[in-house]
Amino acid sequence: MTTFAIAVDLGGTNLRIAAIDDKGKTLDKITTSTEVARGRDLVIDEMCAAIQEIVVKLRGAGELAGIGIGVPGIIEMQTGMLHESPNLPGWENYPVRDEIERRLKTTVVLENDANAAALGEKWLGAGATVDDMVMLTLGTGVGGGIVLNGKIWHGMTGMAGEPGHINVEPDGHPCNCGSRGCLEQIASATAIKRMATEAVASGNAPHMAQAMKASPEFSSKAIYDLAMQGDPQAQAIFQRVGNALGTVLADLVNIFNIPMYVIGGGVASAWEAFAPAMMEKVRKNSFVYRATAPATNTPGGNAQSGAGRASIITPALLGSDAGLIGAARLPMISNQTTSNQKTSS
Amino acid sequence: MTTFAIAVDLGGTNLRIAAIDDKGKTLDKITTSTEVARGRDLVIDEMCAAIQEIVVKLRGAGELAGIGIGVPGIIEMQTGMLHESPNLPGWENYPVRDEIERRLKTTVVLENDANAAALGEKWLGAGATVDDMVMLTLGTGVGGGIVLNGKIWHGMTGMAGEPGHINVEPDGHPCNCGSRGCLEQIASATAIKRMATEAVASGNAPHMAQAMKASPEFSSKAIYDLAMQGDPQAQAIFQRVGNALGTVLADLVNIFNIPMYVIGGGVASAWEAFAPAMMEKVRKNSFVYRATAPATNTPGGNAQSGAGRASIITPALLGSDAGLIGAARLPMISNQTTSNQKTSS
Repeated sequence: MTTFAIAVDLGGTNLRIAAIDDKGKTLDKITTSTEVARGRDLVIDEMCAAIQEIVVKLRGAGELAGIGIGVPGIIEMQTGMLHESPNLPGWENYPVRDEIERRLKTTVVLENDANAAALGEKWLGAGATVDDMVMLTLGTGVGGGIVLNGKIWHGMTGMAGEPGHINVEPDGHPCNCGSRGCLEQIASATAIKRMATEAVASGNAPHMAQAMKASPEFSSKAIYDLAMQGDPQAQAIFQRVGNALGTVLADLVNIFNIPMYVIGGGVASAWEAFAPAMMEKVRKNSFVYRATAPATNTPGGNAQSGAGRASIITPALLGSDAGLIGAARLPMISNQTTSNQKTSS
Repeated sequence: MTTFAIAVDLGGTNLRIAAIDDKGKTLDKITTSTEVARGRDLVIDEMCAAIQEIVVKLRGAGELAGIGIGVPGIIEMQTGMLHESPNLPGWENYPVRDEIERRLKTTVVLENDANAAALGEKWLGAGATVDDMVMLTLGTGVGGGIVLNGKIWHGMTGMAGEPGHINVEPDGHPCNCGSRGCLEQIASATAIKRMATEAVASGNAPHMAQAMKASPEFSSKAIYDLAMQGDPQAQAIFQRVGNALGTVLADLVNIFNIPMYVIGGGVASAWEAFAPAMMEKVRKNSFVYRATAPATNTPGGNAQSGAGRASIITPALLGSDAGLIGAARLPMISNQTTSNQKTSS
């Protein structure tokens, strides 16, 4: 009999739930209309109801390993509580894991959403051939997940893996974290829109000004389209994104010397616009990269081609499903994922 | 019967050898006059002779666990060969480990010298109470060693742990590694002397100019003395050192979220001159640090006071013996230290 897990992606806006078996096959999938903004208790009620519905439907189809939940916030692994989660007001210092375990009578594992995405890419995506990888998720912010020896590296308080807050421009744009010029202030969708708005305000970006006037939903995608059409101001923005990503990737390669660095999140689909500058910067800044680089860095290239000795920098493969797939993996390996978490508290 | 190991510190200039037991007690110690510049074969002959002399002297005093050798270069852990070692010409692509094992008929473990120093501080120094730490060694260059779960993190080709080449000043001073503005170009003894020379050349550093004229061996120590006497130009140099160290430490805290960051090497003795700027920068740049910082960062403070949840930034405790002590530890734990090294090649 196969084993399956229930995966929950508790996003900042909606709730997605899937049943995924231990081969990675999706058995069932629900995107609820539950608005997370309607409050914790309602979300937990509806989540539990939806999970029970799936479990009943799949009765006899396999053995339930447990429930994995990806959450936008910092998780206390020992207690299963959130201790910082700006997008989920009311969830802090509430025993999320224990409450859901109590209601559904099965193992529940919480994980930060960017860590869950890294675990998903490690299991079934870009990192499937390696044991060690770092993932950067370029979305509204820049998240990260570090997988070492096949396990998420949590650090002592679950706050490890924040490459989005590596310093890139010493006197750069202020960041919500309190610093300035963090990667997140250059390579997130939010930052790309901000840089475009600044360029339009400067009066030197006529095409972007036009696009911004034409579309009220002016997005980083629109700026990407302009860059691909040859607009120099839009290209300059993605050049800056590429330089910032390259600087941080070079730092990470010099620190970890591991085989794979994966870039996911919505902005990763602008790969063609930022990757040339990014790769040039990595090659220039990291002697470790130059010593371990494949002759050509083909996105999705086979990390094993260099006999496990090549540094591959590659786009993520699972798109917005990475977090859900990684969440399913959590209860399947739950005895491992917390191994570097101190048990004292 | 106690176990002991022979530790070898194969520096860029001299050779130091010690016998250290598994409690960390030094049983014997030799600093040979062997000049490493006289060539590989001579150094290996004299090293083996000195080791045999110690082993004969200690016969009956304990069981020999093996020989650990700290080397300034990048080690191929599988083959026991150096694959990049600018300070040891002629040693590359030579089977160092196998040759010494063949001659002395005991286990030999090679390790990069900065990694050996980190392991020494982890065993008997600043990191003795923690499992996870990063060490920065501020000397002629800036080396580093990363200890995760009690073991050196080598990465896939032994090149991990190079925080000296994290980018700090995007358009800064060119670095030997090919990049610009690496930590090493600001926080090494070499960089401090360069910045002092630049200040003197600018004509705005009268006290440093005087000191430089008075002493042909004008060193980073002399600049430190001036800073402590209140010379503003010397203070500005150590402020810049502190800012650079703080920027990199904040990056490392945001990546690893581990309890201890240790600063060693000769420049660490200028702690009083650079630490205030360093700590201010770490606190400003790293939200993870602020969440995990002890109320006051006492150098050498007890990392366990925060129940294993405080980020401590502290000077190394073992001085120039760290590398020798760590080298002794290598054969004692040799089944562990290579665990994250891929066995494929």
